[in-house]
Amino acid sequence: MTMSVATERVFNFSAGPAILPEAVLREAQEAIWNIDGSGIGIMEHSHRGKVFDKVIDEAVADCRELAGISDDYAVLFLQGGASHQFFMIPANYLPEGATADYLNTGKWSQGAIKEAKRYGKVHLSASSEDANFNFIPSGAEVKPSVSPAYTHFTSNNTIFGTQFRTEPAKGGDSFLICDASSDIFSRSIDVSKYGLIYAGAQKNLGPSGTTLVIIRKDLLERTARDLPTMLTYKTHAENDSRYNTPPTFGIYLMGRVFKWIRREGGLAAIAAHNEAKAKIIYDAIDASEFWNGTARADSRSLMNICFRAPSEDLESKFIKEAAAAGMDGLKGHRSAGGMRASVYNAFPKAGCEALAEFMREFERKNG
Amino acid sequence: MTMSVATERVFNFSAGPAILPEAVLREAQEAIWNIDGSGIGIMEHSHRGKVFDKVIDEAVADCRELAGISDDYAVLFLQGGASHQFFMIPANYLPEGATADYLNTGKWSQGAIKEAKRYGKVHLSASSEDANFNFIPSGAEVKPSVSPAYTHFTSNNTIFGTQFRTEPAKGGDSFLICDASSDIFSRSIDVSKYGLIYAGAQKNLGPSGTTLVIIRKDLLERTARDLPTMLTYKTHAENDSRYNTPPTFGIYLMGRVFKWIRREGGLAAIAAHNEAKAKIIYDAIDASEFWNGTARADSRSLMNICFRAPSEDLESKFIKEAAAAGMDGLKGHRSAGGMRASVYNAFPKAGCEALAEFMREFERKNG
Repeated sequence: MTMSVATERVFNFSAGPAILPEAVLREAQEAIWNIDGSGIGIMEHSHRGKVFDKVIDEAVADCRELAGISDDYAVLFLQGGASHQFFMIPANYLPEGATADYLNTGKWSQGAIKEAKRYGKVHLSASSEDANFNFIPSGAEVKPSVSPAYTHFTSNNTIFGTQFRTEPAKGGDSFLICDASSDIFSRSIDVSKYGLIYAGAQKNLGPSGTTLVIIRKDLLERTARDLPTMLTYKTHAENDSRYNTPPTFGIYLMGRVFKWIRREGGLAAIAAHNEAKAKIIYDAIDASEFWNGTARADSRSLMNICFRAPSEDLESKFIKEAAAAGMDGLKGHRSAGGMRASVYNAFPKAGCEALAEFMREFERKNG
Repeated sequence: MTMSVATERVFNFSAGPAILPEAVLREAQEAIWNIDGSGIGIMEHSHRGKVFDKVIDEAVADCRELAGISDDYAVLFLQGGASHQFFMIPANYLPEGATADYLNTGKWSQGAIKEAKRYGKVHLSASSEDANFNFIPSGAEVKPSVSPAYTHFTSNNTIFGTQFRTEPAKGGDSFLICDASSDIFSRSIDVSKYGLIYAGAQKNLGPSGTTLVIIRKDLLERTARDLPTMLTYKTHAENDSRYNTPPTFGIYLMGRVFKWIRREGGLAAIAAHNEAKAKIIYDAIDASEFWNGTARADSRSLMNICFRAPSEDLESKFIKEAAAAGMDGLKGHRSAGGMRASVYNAFPKAGCEALAEFMREFERKNG
């Protein structure tokens, strides 16, 4: 049997759930009908059967290979997205009365901070809130507490288009926790600097509903309080993410994305590609008096490029005309306004070139 | 472009993740590349965009239509499976010092009971544990407490192959909570008898990673303790399951399954089909001295049919030969042994006939 599939795909600038590699989508189309000649689709296989054993084992191995993750760390696939980690982290690692350091660089940092306060004290070691989160604090702007339980930061801020260049300073010998939901595996990462890295899949890794958690194994043993079985990391680590039925299709797809990144040359090659892609759009902004980037130049994100036109009317017009020209998802977040071009790993360079050209043309007509 | 897809599918008796309707899988193959002519696949659409608005709105509407769910109830799509509900329910509805009634009818009931004990007292209003969970308690066997916070039961027990015929007795004016993971929408259900119904998707509704929760709206307002934002049902109800990024593909697929059930004639028609399917296999067991059903006749599940052969050697041989004949997933759960044929909504009658015939043939050769 053959299947007809519409091939017309547009340039999808969505901030998340976001574009996936087309090669992976093609693989998934086959696998949901019949994976590995098993006569059963990937969603229909037992999570304890041999076919899924291979899927999850390879996903873990490819993840380790990609980011150079040592055996000192466990690689877990959980559910609930970053929002679920916002409370699971302090529930496990912030004892009552103790202090955790948080860098407040946007809406997702704020979400994490709100939940942490239920469990202990929060010290804001830095904040860019007064500048509408348009920069990443660094140097003397970061003031760690003396001995925090841990230090938490959001490596990339989707809404305001800012991104940490490197890890922030931390107090004492506290371990670092990173919400890397929106830039995970978009560049090289030295996992050994972290206690815990978490990322909802739906930007760079796969479909929403699966969360990648990379956790240092010694942390599995020290939790701050007695918690439900499902809320301790140890439960999931001891059972290789299969204490309960995991999101099998999400793990399958994430595994295929890991293999795709490896085929693309790994994290260093992806990083170079992402830099080149973002530069095309930032150059269009910087060469113009019409367009204005909202993030401070030294803090610009390579994943989410936020910019404004001279008026909101022109912004609405631009977004509408861009959509008609096959460029979807350019409307900025409601709390930031303007435009946002999200150009995650799977977003093609041709889409960045098309947008830059469209911006120049729009400026000529409306500037 | 055309895509070649292997069409050879086997009879998949997996207990879960389990077989899905082939018509739905065909729809999903197209939708993950380009849904509704949008030029973007279902997994790549923003959860706040118009395409996904339609997906989730229709899923809720079709769910309400299927089960006759009134506006007194909210229909939610959560994450974490039934295991996540095991603690989320008592965290919300079992005040410290108060008692909840649980019917202990198998491994999943025990999981729910274990988590409830963290929050308050548990009264076992009935248990079939002494009989290795081979029956469903009823009549005088059910002894509710006077005024429990709620009464919890597991409507179908996948491991031991038993199923409630109707709702159990409950104490006082407590509300009923049901883990319906493995028989949801396999028959008609009077939702108005319940306070909360939950079901992991991976048996009758879709891929693992999405949990359907049907909750009476007055319960949204009364929670027993202050909880993290993500752990209160109200958070999810107020945001139409989009407080955070939901598992968009899982919701899409569940919605397509709801439409498929409607096309099949709705819950009454599905129930008649399921009765006829299970009867084919139970008749094969009852007509034989060789095969033995493990569940008491009055408690037999229409979803999971558990049976034994005269020896474990013969069981291994049967499972192996059945797999070679295109019948996969017949091995019983490790805690029950023997064979288990899971024949959820999407499992075809032809597969039941094939199994019954294969059982008769195996008996002739080995009996």
